Parts: sequence; structure tokens; C-alpha cells
Amino acid sequence: MVSKEKAVKKAWAGRFTKETSHIVESFTASIDIDKRLYAYDIQGSIAHVKMLAKQKIIKEEDANRIIQGLKEIKDEIDTGDFLFDISDEDIHMAIEMALKKKIGKLAAKLHTARSRNDQIVLDERLYLKDEIKNIIGLIQELRANLTRLAKIYIDVIMPGYTHLQHAQPILFSHYLMAYTEMFRRDVERLEDCYKRVDVLPLGSCALAGTAFPIDRHYVARLLGFKKVSENSIDTVSDRDFILEFLSAVAILAMHLSRFAEDFILWSSEEFNFIEIDDAFCTGSSIMPQKKNPDVLELIRGRVGHIYGNLFNLLTVMKGLPLSYNRDMQEDKRPLFDTIDTIKPILSILSALLQNIEINRKRMEDATRAGFLLATDLADYLVVKGMPFREAHETVGKIVKYCEEKGKSLETLSIEEMRNFCNLINNDVKEILDIKKAISRRSSFGGTAPMETLRLIKKVEKQLEDRTKT
Amino acid sequence: MVSKEKAVKKAWAGRFTKETSHIVESFTASIDIDKRLYAYDIQGSIAHVKMLAKQKIIKEEDANRIIQGLKEIKDEIDTGDFLFDISDEDIHMAIEMALKKKIGKLAAKLHTARSRNDQIVLDERLYLKDEIKNIIGLIQELRANLTRLAKIYIDVIMPGYTHLQHAQPILFSHYLMAYTEMFRRDVERLEDCYKRVDVLPLGSCALAGTAFPIDRHYVARLLGFKKVSENSIDTVSDRDFILEFLSAVAILAMHLSRFAEDFILWSSEEFNFIEIDDAFCTGSSIMPQKKNPDVLELIRGRVGHIYGNLFNLLTVMKGLPLSYNRDMQEDKRPLFDTIDTIKPILSILSALLQNIEINRKRMEDATRAGFLLATDLADYLVVKGMPFREAHETVGKIVKYCEEKGKSLETLSIEEMRNFCNLINNDVKEILDIKKAISRRSSFGGTAPMETLRLIKKVEKQLEDRTKT
Amino acid sequence: MVSKEKAVKKAWAGRFTKETSHIVESFTASIDIDKRLYAYDIQGSIAHVKMLAKQKIIKEEDANRIIQGLKEIKDEIDTGDFLFDISDEDIHMAIEMALKKKIGKLAAKLHTARSRNDQIVLDERLYLKDEIKNIIGLIQELRANLTRLAKIYIDVIMPGYTHLQHAQPILFSHYLMAYTEMFRRDVERLEDCYKRVDVLPLGSCALAGTAFPIDRHYVARLLGFKKVSENSIDTVSDRDFILEFLSAVAILAMHLSRFAEDFILWSSEEFNFIEIDDAFCTGSSIMPQKKNPDVLELIRGRVGHIYGNLFNLLTVMKGLPLSYNRDMQEDKRPLFDTIDTIKPILSILSALLQNIEINRKRMEDATRAGFLLATDLADYLVVKGMPFREAHETVGKIVKYCEEKGKSLETLSIEEMRNFCNLINNDVKEILDIKKAISRRSSFGGTAPMETLRLIKKVEKQLEDRTKT
Amino acid sequence: MVSKEKAVKKAWAGRFTKETSHIVESFTASIDIDKRLYAYDIQGSIAHVKMLAKQKIIKEEDANRIIQGLKEIKDEIDTGDFLFDISDEDIHMAIEMALKKKIGKLAAKLHTARSRNDQIVLDERLYLKDEIKNIIGLIQELRANLTRLAKIYIDVIMPGYTHLQHAQPILFSHYLMAYTEMFRRDVERLEDCYKRVDVLPLGSCALAGTAFPIDRHYVARLLGFKKVSENSIDTVSDRDFILEFLSAVAILAMHLSRFAEDFILWSSEEFNFIEIDDAFCTGSSIMPQKKNPDVLELIRGRVGHIYGNLFNLLTVMKGLPLSYNRDMQEDKRPLFDTIDTIKPILSILSALLQNIEINRKRMEDATRAGFLLATDLADYLVVKGMPFREAHETVGKIVKYCEEKGKSLETLSIEEMRNFCNLINNDVKEILDIKKAISRRSSFGGTAPMETLRLIKKVEKQLEDRTKT
Repeated sequence: MVSKEKAVKKAWAGRFTKETSHIVESFTASIDIDKRLYAYDIQGSIAHVKMLAKQKIIKEEDANRIIQGLKEIKDEIDTGDFLFDISDEDIHMAIEMALKKKIGKLAAKLHTARSRNDQIVLDERLYLKDEIKNIIGLIQELRANLTRLAKIYIDVIMPGYTHLQHAQPILFSHYLMAYTEMFRRDVERLEDCYKRVDVLPLGSCALAGTAFPIDRHYVARLLGFKKVSENSIDTVSDRDFILEFLSAVAILAMHLSRFAEDFILWSSEEFNFIEIDDAFCTGSSIMPQKKNPDVLELIRGRVGHIYGNLFNLLTVMKGLPLSYNRDMQEDKRPLFDTIDTIKPILSILSALLQNIEINRKRMEDATRAGFLLATDLADYLVVKGMPFREAHETVGKIVKYCEEKGKSLETLSIEEMRNFCNLINNDVKEILDIKKAISRRSSFGGTAPMETLRLIKKVEKQLEDRTKT
Repeated sequence: MVSKEKAVKKAWAGRFTKETSHIVESFTASIDIDKRLYAYDIQGSIAHVKMLAKQKIIKEEDANRIIQGLKEIKDEIDTGDFLFDISDEDIHMAIEMALKKKIGKLAAKLHTARSRNDQIVLDERLYLKDEIKNIIGLIQELRANLTRLAKIYIDVIMPGYTHLQHAQPILFSHYLMAYTEMFRRDVERLEDCYKRVDVLPLGSCALAGTAFPIDRHYVARLLGFKKVSENSIDTVSDRDFILEFLSAVAILAMHLSRFAEDFILWSSEEFNFIEIDDAFCTGSSIMPQKKNPDVLELIRGRVGHIYGNLFNLLTVMKGLPLSYNRDMQEDKRPLFDTIDTIKPILSILSALLQNIEINRKRMEDATRAGFLLATDLADYLVVKGMPFREAHETVGKIVKYCEEKGKSLETLSIEEMRNFCNLINNDVKEILDIKKAISRRSSFGGTAPMETLRLIKKVEKQLEDRTKT
Repeated sequence: MVSKEKAVKKAWAGRFTKETSHIVESFTASIDIDKRLYAYDIQGSIAHVKMLAKQKIIKEEDANRIIQGLKEIKDEIDTGDFLFDISDEDIHMAIEMALKKKIGKLAAKLHTARSRNDQIVLDERLYLKDEIKNIIGLIQELRANLTRLAKIYIDVIMPGYTHLQHAQPILFSHYLMAYTEMFRRDVERLEDCYKRVDVLPLGSCALAGTAFPIDRHYVARLLGFKKVSENSIDTVSDRDFILEFLSAVAILAMHLSRFAEDFILWSSEEFNFIEIDDAFCTGSSIMPQKKNPDVLELIRGRVGHIYGNLFNLLTVMKGLPLSYNRDMQEDKRPLFDTIDTIKPILSILSALLQNIEINRKRMEDATRAGFLLATDLADYLVVKGMPFREAHETVGKIVKYCEEKGKSLETLSIEEMRNFCNLINNDVKEILDIKKAISRRSSFGGTAPMETLRLIKKVEKQLEDRTKT
Repeated sequence: MVSKEKAVKKAWAGRFTKETSHIVESFTASIDIDKRLYAYDIQGSIAHVKMLAKQKIIKEEDANRIIQGLKEIKDEIDTGDFLFDISDEDIHMAIEMALKKKIGKLAAKLHTARSRNDQIVLDERLYLKDEIKNIIGLIQELRANLTRLAKIYIDVIMPGYTHLQHAQPILFSHYLMAYTEMFRRDVERLEDCYKRVDVLPLGSCALAGTAFPIDRHYVARLLGFKKVSENSIDTVSDRDFILEFLSAVAILAMHLSRFAEDFILWSSEEFNFIEIDDAFCTGSSIMPQKKNPDVLELIRGRVGHIYGNLFNLLTVMKGLPLSYNRDMQEDKRPLFDTIDTIKPILSILSALLQNIEINRKRMEDATRAGFLLATDLADYLVVKGMPFREAHETVGKIVKYCEEKGKSLETLSIEEMRNFCNLINNDVKEILDIKKAISRRSSFGGTAPMETLRLIKKVEKQLEDRTKT
């Protein structure tokens, strides 16, 4: 086009010209990041080639030579004998170039009826299916460890907190089982996400499908995909499956940050409810006495990466026109980083749980501070016929009286209590017993031992059923 | 506690003392925000009271009077005759106070065996179940509108884009159906989320359950919940169901932002593929000729609120100790804002789609620029026996030649082409026909009319089945 | 354009046609949100009209009538006598329409040589300048309150924490002054941001400037802007000044969330370092004994809104082509919400600080647990000639011995210590005195009273200087 | 503590015991990430040791041996002869261990009167000061390149866009200079941030300062810090300086994403305003004709990482109690990633700008579509005495007439125009000339060549002044 013009470069360009190709190469290459997908890339290519042969798009013998070559390349990468080069741009090209060196021109037939646009999502989906399964496995192991602890310590009582204030007495096991519920939901979310990952994209080609008589359902069967994508434009434009995964892990990481927070609080001098094994703590370079719950702090802190990765990809995808845009290459850094962050957290937390000491006495002592049975006393009055709100107010006054006298509810005399309300009788002593109070809270899902054990058994059953399948 | 001391206030306090209660009240009150939950709050209270009576925790007649009072309050709020007051703190207290005015002390029995901690999640879950259904309805309507357009315009062709560059010719309908697929996944995600919202929290009380002999499964049946929560600490600490919803809507909003982006591009002078009805555009206060696609820009822009709301609540929940903390009150602003933002977007986009004009000729003309059939030519060579990568290179050279001569592939003579590769024969003309090229791409999910129609029918069936149930 | 076609609407449209204009109106209108800018909008219009008259673009008498009309409108809005209507679209049109009703056709001259594109940023900049000043004022008041507390409690000692473990003894005042430093940086960031807000945008018109002989520097003088924007395209495309403000407030909110966290911890039964006045706490609807630090929890939780607002606008602006796009209208919700969230937090925290009780004895007692002087003992050995790392190790062993024996460093005999290192002599007793240990840490910025008082005086001076100007 | 108990491990632990130390080590180690700080760590240690000697805290000769050792270690790392080991935990320990191997026990004296808590922020501040300077340099180079282009192409005209619709004609150079203004603000923000990075933290030790008679101002002078931190608790707790940097770069990245968006649009077949050099584009693996603006797409996409990193660290810091917590170790990943992402973007964009071709004719032709001079015509009527809003309406009608007749404003006859308004005369032809229209917009900051050149000169001067200093 004659009408176009270029800035007279001599004046101010020059130093770039030589470097340009290298600058651009290293700016755009993704090989450093996506090479970890090599096994999935080769697995996908082998299935693709088998299909091409079955459909007679390429010859059987050509297919066999290509497959042989791909397998050799996989072995080389497995054993570390493969040299990646930034000029290969991405994992797809790296493997194809290597194949060319091995089997010559024939290698070029591999890319018939596909594009890197559908190939990369194939790799990502195969990879993510595996990783979701891995992560679910780690969560279930964590649930198992929590449940075991809950069973062992079924008789340990402690204050339950709302607003970080003493609220009502609970079983420590009831607390632990709250997390098995959160993690169950995390598993469910990941399983739901998995359904949407488990869809074959290959055969969508660049964006419009292909004129070659391919058989996508055959490829799906070879690779173990439940479904085949229905619209080729959507298929190459879509990163929902990654976003949904990053969201599910963000919620999981939030749960973990709360667990870490509680255990950090409980390791403090002031709470002193638990002691974490030395192996999971580190010291200070300046303060000889320090034993820091670093592992828990890092668990809590790393939620930052996981939230950040979600927002990263949401930003990338915002307002992109259809179909594929190169921006989408940037999906891999957040995906890999989230996986690399969450897996060690889950592993180490399982390990740490097996190495904590419970300060049973300190937990139990704590239930005697803070008037934990005030609700029980109010409920007692309700049973005697007083409307709840009135009972609430009456007990509020008794608590105030105790505070002024430096007494606890348990140590008040019946007479002192009757000054506030003559519905109170000797039977109140039964009420003001922490362990009995816990046992009484036997509503479905409540903290009573029988209810807590019910959930323990249910979770054990869930985990067992899982192992069987 | 004698040892405590207070800063000598005279020196520097003073002006606050009088205002304090009002400042704190307005700082902590949520009534302005949560009053929209009133119908659900009353619905939940009625079910709770019915259960209390059935379990003989309160008397039948008391229950009836409470229920009658609650119904009257609902009527008053419905008709706008109810006065909300910031001193009521939250919707629960506002209703209970009103009940007290109506039926006196008896009102106080309503709060037996529950807490605001489980009551607020009950309200939120009832509300969110309704809103998820509403949003799914709006998405399905949007899918229906897209599918209708796809059917009407089944013969309109246009360039398909990757990297915003002309890639391959596609059907406009194929493009539209890509969005029905995205929105299908959005529906699925919301349905999966719904399962986890559909769990009764009531009866978890403050955090530990209750000693009253309540029947949570009965309440669940009355209110239409599929499940009953299993651990009371988890129940009052959990906001997963909101986070999951906000994540699902964030992905939906991302899809909408992409659609808006495309349609804004297509409304530009340069693309000129579509014209949006004047009713959906606004003018400029200074430039008389302007007709701006404001509605689409606002759709694209409002994804910001929806992403922001997700990160808002993720931040709130990060690192919170169990169980309930007041921070969690802040879940309502992002939840309501996301719902209030997404619903009008879905409605207006359905309306807008019914008011666009398609510039069929301009779209078709555009397919003649940019060598859209280069892939087809390469595939042609592959069929003639040339390996794909080599064919790709050969066509690349032909394209370069065309660019220099100012020609298109379609207007090259066979001879000119044969200069590059003597595998090319007269039958290539068949290949270089845009409409035929589209029809050829008949792989599953491809852009060929038969494939596009297949998906149209499938989606029509999905929507129909839905209406039946 | 004949070639365009419209979907045969009868089949599936219909119900929208009548509603369309209203739907679109309410979807695009911003009047509900931007009406709060009215005073700035009118202030800007008056300055603009004065300039138009001075430059003889409109007649002096016309200008006077317009100004008179605008002032009347302002009075009406001030007193609540003005009726806003959604059909007015935005605050600019609402005022112009009202002006037209007042002074007729002449009103139309007001919009000469300007556009809503530059007008809205004018309003936002005027508004934000005021609000930044307000927020800085609130922060300085908070710094003043912290400093007063620090002065009053200069003799209160407590454990300093790292990893939430006891680390070294500190002055409570030293802790408080850490926050005056954080808040000083917040002020600086807001002041730096202010410089970039303080730039006149008006006169950039739609995007390209104007042919009218306007005098932008005169308008800047009238409105009190330091600078005039240099490029009209940039001026209407730019929302940096809001993003920078939202970032600065996000960091401020983070500081506040940390303060709230500490004070929530300290209000727990286990720490019990402080007691917050009843006026700043709320109770429980079910547990009569509860006194919850709700205000602090809400401060901590509301950081979520403020983070969310930042990411909201970052998302909106990502990838927008130049110049103005309607997406940018969505800047106001996050801006206003951040301002409405942060101001009450700052106010209430100042008030709360004047209403806390310090449990001096409990804080001091806590310094005796956790071997807070281990570093001092190590330093003592270093002074005696032992390399630091070796001293660190030696003290580590002594601490372990104490733990096993249930002793503290202070209660060990010289002999017991000498078993670990014979460099230890009687002079070590001086070292193992908490108050002396604090006084010794007199390095610049250290916790020694003299250093803490130095900073107190410095901050007092800063605040005083501020008041003078 | 006798009262503590440990879960009977035999049952379910076991397999972890052997691995534990390694798992924890690799979970907590930061050496892989923070080793890049080695030069700053050594620089800081040398300054620290010099001060210890000057203050006679250690002997001159000891200091010299330590310094000698540190310099050797730096050389070894520089040349790649140093072996990092994950068991070294972090860069501080790695260097100290190496020093010990070199000079024996004496190495232990290095850590006198400091802690890793103040050491790490020292390293980060030294590092960030350098990187801010580097980034500012790259931005200024980009501004220089934009300004040179603006100068060369000063006579190229194009449509200015609002809402991506043709709005008014502008100079291409005016567009380019809008970015020099955005980038100027980015530089200012980074310079303001720099002031708050340029503060010496060392000497704050663990959190409380030290009893050793250190001289922090001397260390500040040695290391080139303008200020010394004022409160030791704040100093080790503070990561504001990183958050502020991440915010500033997020805004910068947003600007870059907008630039990329515009240039991607302009490279499309439909706009065709510019052509990017082949060296900056890549092709397609399947479509031989493709030339994709990958570099620009990646610039746009990578804003995701940069936004994500900001949210990452904001999340980490939210609600952390004072002072140092291990969570804060997680600041380095987002910091380094943002720096590693933004620098290549800035470099490559400078390079790309030197390799674009401008399609001058196409840009100019585009100004003839879309009634770009409608505002000018309205202004013409205003000058003739018509109020602006009325003129706006009149021109709106003329535009509508043109659209129906398929004419442009420039080709209408005077008579046709007078049908709408008889104020129109022959002098209107002058008005309806694109180039003249541009020249007329000579208000300060407007698009007229003289105004655009004024800013070009101003920016040239800014850049020149910078080079001098």
C-alpha cells in the first residue's frame, strides 16, 4: 500500500533493529510456562493422529510413525533429555519441531484439521482434570485428618466464640467438624467445575471447525472426555472452566485462612489452647525464645496469591471480542500458580494436624470465664414460662451483678439468683453445668456429643464410600 | 475491674459523649440495607413459630397470635404503611418491635430457640433462592432471543475473527450461538450454586444449637429447603453460598462484557455491521450527529461493580476466626448490588437484541477482504497430498503475492497459482467460494449451516423442556 | 440504508415496544447517583458563564440572568424544594432543564463551548478536592487522639508481638505511635493525589477543545485550580485521579483493619488488655452476657467495600479505547461509596479511642510470660564478647531449661545460668528488668520512653503547624 | 507441659514423620524468590558493619574481615559460582552461612543489633528504589518516542472518537500526546512513591529497636537514604511502600491496556489506520494469511497480572495484627512479578512505536464519514446568534436529512441548508473544511496544530531537563 508511510527511522531507531526479533520472541513466548503441559499435549496429539488415520485423512503407516515419534519425545522430556528453546515459542511448536527432526516432513501432517487455538484448551482441560482430582484427594485427606482428631478428642470442651468473645461452650470436635463441612462444599464445587472441564474442545480448529471429515466423538472417547463442545467459536474463546476453578479454590483458600487464623490465635501465649510441633514452627534470628507458627501464617498469607490469580484472569477476559485473542495466553500463569500454591497448603495442613498438642485443661478452664451458660439460664427461665426476651433481660442483670461481685454464674447461691427472679429453683444447678449444657444442645447439627458423633460417622462414611469407588 | 483505667476524658473528649449513641447506631445499623429481606424474614418466623407450637415449646394459641401479628406486619410493609427506624438496628428487630406493639409481651416468645446469627442466613438463603431463579429465567430469555435471531439470520455470512483479524468466514448465526453456549454454562453454574443455597440454617442458633426440642426438618419442609445444615458452627460462619453466587455472576458478567464489546465495535463507522435502534442509544450534548451505543457501554462498564463485589466479600471473609463475626454483616451490600446490577443488564440486552438492524451486505462484503479462504486453500493442498505445514507455507507465499498485486485469492488465475504449486487445478475454484467454504466446515460444532441449525434446534429443545417443567 | 434489515419483530417482540424508552432511561440515567454533585455543577457553570461573558462569547446581561437562575436553583436544591426526575438523565441536564423553565431559551447559551464530557470531570474534581480535605482532617484528628492517648499512658508496658507471639517488651504508647506514622503516610499520599486532582478540565469540550475564544486559565482562577489540563483528549478520557484516590484510601483502610484486628484481639477474654465502652459495643439477641466489639468488626469488614471499589474502577477502565466512553459513568458508585465508607470509620474510631479503658495490670503481667528478655540476655553476652549467633544459641538453651523447670528468666539463679555460660555475672539482674529493658532500647525510633516521647512531640508539632495554616 | 496431650500418632501418622522437616522447609523457604535481592542484602550488611565498627560495637579489624568476606560472596554470586540451597531458608541466612564458612565464628557478629525483620525491608527498599528509577527511565523513553512520532506526523488527521463513534476531527499527534500526559502522571506517582520508599528501616531490629548504641543516620548516609524511619514497630510492620508502588503500576498498566486496545482496533481490516511491522506480529499455525498484533494483545492481557498482584498484597495485609507476621513474606512474589511484567512491556512498546506504518490516506478518508463537523456547524449558528441548544437541534435535523439523502455536510448546497435555518450563508463553506476545523480548535490543550506543537515542545523540554540532571 503506497499510501502508508513509516517514520524516518534513521533519526531515532537503529539500536532496536538488531534486537527486535529477540525482544519480541522473549516477550511473546510461553514455552517457559506451558512446557509443563507436554505430557497432555502429546497425549492429545496421539489421539488426534489416531482419529486422522481412522478417518483416512492420513495414512495408517504415517500415523504410526508420528505416534512413535511423539512417544519418543515424551520419554526424552520425562527423563530430562529434551532441550527446550525459547525460539520454539510454545509447547506445541517445540514438540512439532522435535518431531520434524525425528521423522522429517511427515511431521507436518500432525497439524491437519486442528489449530493451536483448540490444541491449547485441550491441553489445559486434560491437565486441569488431573489436578482437580489431585486437589480433591488432598481435601479428602484433610477431612479425614480432621475427623480423626475430632474422634480422638471427643471429650475436650472449650468456649465457642462469636465476635471473638466467649459465647457458649462447645466440643472442640464440633469446631473441627465445622471445617469438614466447609471442605465438603469445596469438594462439591470442584466436582461441579469438573463437569464443565470434562468437554473435548479439539476439532474446533481455529474458530470455525473444519472441512476434513474428522470424528470428534472418537477423540473424546480416546481421551476420556464425557462431552464434545457444541460450538467451535465458543470453544476457542472460552476460559470459563479456568475461572470457575480459580473461584472454587479462592473459596477453599478463604476457609484455610480462617482455620490458620484460629490456630494462630490459639497458639498465642494468651490463648495457649494448642501447641504446634517444633517441626512446623521456626525461630527468630534475633529473639532466642521465639517459636513462630510460620506455616499457619503462610497458609493465611498465601490466600493473597489465590485471590489475586482469580482477579488476574477475570481482568484478562473482561471485554475481549470473540473469538481467540492472544491475551488469553495469560491464563496459564494464574492457573499454574493457584495449583502450585494450594496443593502444598493442603498437604502441610494435614501433616500439621497430626503434630499438634491440645492443651485440654486450658481449654476447659477457659469455659469458666465469660458466663458461657447465660443462654442456658435464659432458656431455663423460658421453660419456666417467661417469654424469651424477658428472660434474656433478667439474665443480663444477673451477669452484671456477677461482674460487680467478681463471681461466676456457677458460684452464685440460689438466693442471690432468686433476688432477680423467683422462678429460679434448685434445679438450676443442673443447668449451670458446662458438660451437661453441651450435652443438652442436641438439636440436629448442635454441639452435643451424640450429634457431633453423628456427623463424624457420616463423614467417615462419605470418605469410605469415596475410597471404594 | 479496679485495675482498669480510663483516659482522663475531660481534657479531650466531651463533644462526643452526647452524640455517641447516635453515631454508633447509624454506624452499626443495617436496617436501611436489610429491610428488603422483610418478606423472607416473616416467612421464616412463621415457619419457626409453627414448629415451636408443634413441638409444644410454645402454646398453639400463642403461636397463632404471633403468626397473625406477623402477617399484619407483612401487609403493612407491602403497602408502604410501615415506618422503618434506624434505631431498630436490623430487619429482625424492626419486625419484632412491631410485633411487640401489636401483641405485647407474647411477641418475645418468637425468638425462642433461634438467634439472629441463624436468622439472617435463613433470610438470605430464602431471598437468594428466589433471585437465582429470577436470574436463570432472564438468562434463558436471552438465550431464546439469541436463538431466534440465529434462526432468522441463518443465511448471513461474515468474517470470523481471531486477534480481531479476519480469520475464516462464519455464519452470523454461528457467532450468536456461541453466546447461547456461554449462557448455558452460566445457568448450570447458578443451578449448582442453588443446590448449596438450598439448605436450612435455622436451628443452629447462636453457634452451638439449642437444648429446646426443635424439629429442623419440619421447618425445612415448611420453607421448601432440600437439606438441613449439619454443623451449627459452620452454619453461622458460612457465607460460601454468597461467594459462589457472586463468582458465577462475575463469569456471566464477563460474557456480557464481551458481547457488548463486539456489538460496540460492530456499531462503529468502520465496521458498520449492525445498527442499534435509536431507543437504545443516546446523543451528545455537544455533537449533534452522535448516536452512541450507551446501553452496551454501560453493560460492559458495569462488570466492574460485579467483579468489585466479589472481591469485596472475599476480602471480608479472609482470615476471620470462627464463628460469626460482625464483619459478615457486610455481605449484603455486595450481594444486593450484584443482583440489582445484573438483572437489568439481562433484561435490556434481550430488548436490545429485538431492536437491532443487521447490515447484511456490509458483513458479506467484509468476507472478501483479508484472504479468509487461505486455510481452505491450504487444506485443498493437503488433500492433494502436501503435508499441512508445507501447504501453509505455500499459501502464505500466494497471499503475499496477492497483497503485492492488490488482488484477492478469488481473482487470481489458475496459472498465477500454479506458479507457486502445480498441484493446483481448476477444481480450486470450488474451494475459493465463501459460501461453499462455510458449508464445508461441517465438523461437529462447526460453522456450516447444518451444524449451526443442529445447535439451534438443541437449544430450542432445552428451552422448551424448561418451560414444560 | 436499504441493505439493512430488521428481524421481523411481530413474531417475538411486542411486549417491549411500549416499555423500551422507560427501560433505557432508567438503565442509563445517573441522576440518582450524581445529583449529589449539584453544588459543584452549579459552581462550575457560574464560573464558565462568567468566562463566556468576559470573552464576549455571550452578553454580560445574558450571563447575569443565567447566573441568577443557577443561584436560585442551588437554593432550591439546598432546601429540598427541587424535584429530581429520572427523565433528566443526569445532574447537568436536570439543572439546565430547570434553568430553561426559569429563564427560557437563554438557558441554552450556558452549554456554549463545553460538553458533558469535560463538565462531569469538573464536578468530580471540585467534589473530590473537598472530600480529600475532609478526609485528611479526619485522619489528623485520629492522629491527634492517638497521640493524646500515647502521652497519657506513657508508662504502660506490654508485650510486643511478632507472629502474634510475645517478642519483646514495649510501651503501649510506642504501639499507638506506630499508627500515627502509618496515618501520616496516608495523609501524604492523599496530598500527593490532591495535586493531580487540582487540575481544571473544563474547556476540553467533547474531546478536541473548541474554536470559541475561551480563557481556561481565568476559569481555573475563579474555581481555585492550580493547573489547567494540557491535552483535551486525555482530559476527557482520564480517571486516574479517582483511581489514585481509591488506592490511597485502600491502603488507609488496610491500616484501619489492622488496628481493628488488634483491638478485637485485645478485647477478648484471653487477652483482656482493653475494655471498650458499652456505647461502642452491642449485645446478642440470644446470649445475655455478650458484649461484642461490633464497631471494630465493622471497621475491619468494611475494608472489603473499599478494596472492591478500587478493583471495580480498575476493571471499568481496563482496555477502554480513547477517548470518553459511557463505561466511565460507572466511576461514581465506587467513588461515592468509598468516601461514604471511610469517613464514618475515621470519625467513630476517634470517638472510640476516647472511650476505652486500659487494663494496665493485665498488660504488665503479660510481659512476664514468654521470655520477653531473651534478646536482652543474648545482647548482654554479646557485650561480654560472645558473637551474636552463639549468644542466641546459648540463650535458646537457657529458655528451654526454664520451660522444663517452669521458671522464668527473671527467677533463675545466677548459678543456674552460669551452667550454660560462665560469662554471666551478677550484673545480669540489671538486664533482666522489664522496665529497664524498655528504657535501654533507645535507638532512634525505638521503644524507650525518651524515643517515644520524641515522636509524640514531633507529631504534636506536625498537627499544630497544620492547624496554623 | 504435662497437661498437654498429643493425638496417639501411631494410628494415623507415621508416613509424615520422616518427610516433615523437608516439607516444612520447602513450604516456608523463600530463598528461590528472594535470592535476587543478594546484592542489596550485601550492600546493606556492609553498611551495617561499618556502622558497628564506627560505634565500637565490634572491632574495626573484625568489621574489615566481615566486609572482605561479604564482597567475595557477592563476586561469587555475580559470576554464578555460588550454590543456593533450599535449607538456607532465605537470602539473609544463605549469605551468613557462606560468610561463616569463609571467616568462621566471627561471621556471627554481623547480625548484632539487627533482625531479619528490618533487614528484609532494607533489601526491598534498596531494590525498589533502583527499580522505580529504571521504570521511570523506560516511561520517559516511551514518552520521547511518542513525542517524536507526534512531531513527524504533525499533519496527519483522523477522526476523534467518543463511545467509539466518530466525534470530531483531530490530529493523530494530538492523540499521541494524550498518552504523554498519562505517562507524565505515572512518572509523578512513581516519584511520589519513591519519597516513601527512600526511608532507612535498619536499626528497628525485631520490632522495638535496640540497646546497642547504633547510629542509624550514619547508615542512611552510607546507603543513600533521605530519611530514617521514626517508629520501630511501624517499620517492621509496614508494606505501604510496596502497595503504593503496585497501585501506581496498576494505573500505568491500565493506560497501556488502552493504548494496546486502540492500536489493535486500528490494525483491524476495518479500521486499517496503522500497520505494525512484521517483526512485532506473529502468524497462525492454521491460517496462512494471518498477521496478528500479538505484542499488543499481550500488553493488554498482562494488565491482569498487575491488577492481580495489587489485590494479592492488599489481601495479605488485610487485618494483620502488628507487628511483623510471616504472611508478609508473601510480598515478594507480587512485587517481583509486577516489575518483571511492566518493564518488558514498556521496552517493547517503545520498539514497536518505531516500527509502525501510518495509513495517512485511510485516516484522512475516515474523517469524511460520520458528520465530524456537525459541532462546528452548530457553533457557527451560535456565533450567528442562536442559543447553543437550539443550534444543536437544528444541526441534528440537517444530519438526519443528509443520512436520508446519502450526502455529507460538506456536499450539501447552501440552499439545502437554508431550508433548515436561514442564518446559514456562504461563509459556512469555510466552516465545513476539516483541516480548518482542526486549526480552529486552538483553545488551550485543543487539537489545533499550534496547541499540539506547544505540548510537544513542553514535553521535549521536560525530557531534556531530565537528561541534564
